[in-house]
Amino acid sequence: MKAEDYKRLVRLYVPEAAFIQGKNLSLSEGQAHYLRNVMRKSAGDALRVFNGQDGDWLATVAEINKKKALVKLDHQLLEQKQSPYVWVLASPVKKEAFDLMIEKSCELGAAKFIPVTCEHTVVHKINQERLQAIAIEAAEQSERLDVMTVEPLSDLKKCLNSFDYKRNIIFCIERAAAVSLAGAAKKLAQKPLAILIGPEGGFSSQEVDFISNFKNVTPVSLGPRILKTETALIAALAGVQLLGE
Amino acid sequence: MKAEDYKRLVRLYVPEAAFIQGKNLSLSEGQAHYLRNVMRKSAGDALRVFNGQDGDWLATVAEINKKKALVKLDHQLLEQKQSPYVWVLASPVKKEAFDLMIEKSCELGAAKFIPVTCEHTVVHKINQERLQAIAIEAAEQSERLDVMTVEPLSDLKKCLNSFDYKRNIIFCIERAAAVSLAGAAKKLAQKPLAILIGPEGGFSSQEVDFISNFKNVTPVSLGPRILKTETALIAALAGVQLLGE
Repeated sequence: MKAEDYKRLVRLYVPEAAFIQGKNLSLSEGQAHYLRNVMRKSAGDALRVFNGQDGDWLATVAEINKKKALVKLDHQLLEQKQSPYVWVLASPVKKEAFDLMIEKSCELGAAKFIPVTCEHTVVHKINQERLQAIAIEAAEQSERLDVMTVEPLSDLKKCLNSFDYKRNIIFCIERAAAVSLAGAAKKLAQKPLAILIGPEGGFSSQEVDFISNFKNVTPVSLGPRILKTETALIAALAGVQLLGE
Repeated sequence: MKAEDYKRLVRLYVPEAAFIQGKNLSLSEGQAHYLRNVMRKSAGDALRVFNGQDGDWLATVAEINKKKALVKLDHQLLEQKQSPYVWVLASPVKKEAFDLMIEKSCELGAAKFIPVTCEHTVVHKINQERLQAIAIEAAEQSERLDVMTVEPLSDLKKCLNSFDYKRNIIFCIERAAAVSLAGAAKKLAQKPLAILIGPEGGFSSQEVDFISNFKNVTPVSLGPRILKTETALIAALAGVQLLGE
């Protein structure tokens, strides 16, 4: 099989430690359903699996029925790469937009996503499990070798007060005199990094003062246009990686 | 009224030439419905309007009923700014993703969106009118002073053969040895620009050769990750503007 053909195989995240040649992995019920009923796979078919630490592996369906599937590890296709270094701190917004933010953050290589409640946050509940599932699906489809973790919802101030001060925070603010993302390129090269994005209504002026007081925070403007929260996050993530890599 | 309060007003695109103080503008049936039944506005209420050439204006609802609304131009709030300079050439993809591409392109300041059919394009029909409506809504909400135009669907090769050779094309390719977007920054500073994005299956190798032969084309890689078409476009648009402005 050629490298290009491997790319076409179904790819699943199987969070089981230590992939070893010949080992059988048990898939979840959802994965068994997907493999059998959606992708129409049966015993003997090839797929790719990853566990977030042992790279990408070729595997073969060993056994599959309605509720259960076993796949056998064949050989490693790709070695595990260095982990991504960007975290996202973002206020929850309405469902479709927040789902998109989770999916795109994972696709664009974020390591961790921390939902934070700000003063102007309207959505005060998240379904962490559902969001984590979106991140897993995005990892499977984007050929990432690990999965972005989605953290529980936390309060912005509490989160920042206990935050690792060695991680620089790119603080995205609208309609304010701040350096452009390109202007902060030097700071961006100092990893590890986090991107902080507020709710649709923006940060309160009290929050802006509070956040700006942290030494590891760099306020940054994303340009002259008014961007929706999800667009701002995608633009910032793309920009940070373009400028920082 | 303070500048911040203006930002909260409903904002509508009324493509009528020459805004003059005191002039009455007739809104479309859809806008009349939106203003009256969705936003609950009545005679005397303030709103903002723009026509793409005379900046942003404050206006007052003069008359409103089920099918019709007249608004009176009060005074100019913002002068017309320089027009955006980036065009997008992109293959249609499935509905939700393509809608997102139109919306985000407008939000991120593209001037024109040309849907192009490539060899691996699966979707061969677009509803130009519906897509233009999405672009108008995005312009209204993002405080743009003009609207991105959505062109009819055209064939990639025909489009490139008749393309203005003075407009540089950033040709986004995956899994290929090309300079990074940041590495092409010098080229990006030479405006006008266009971004070319292929379908989910990518460009065929024959297409890659054909496109790369044009002197105004710069093949560019968007990084090590496999991005969905819509993510690639948003990342490229954000990157081009970050690096080129």
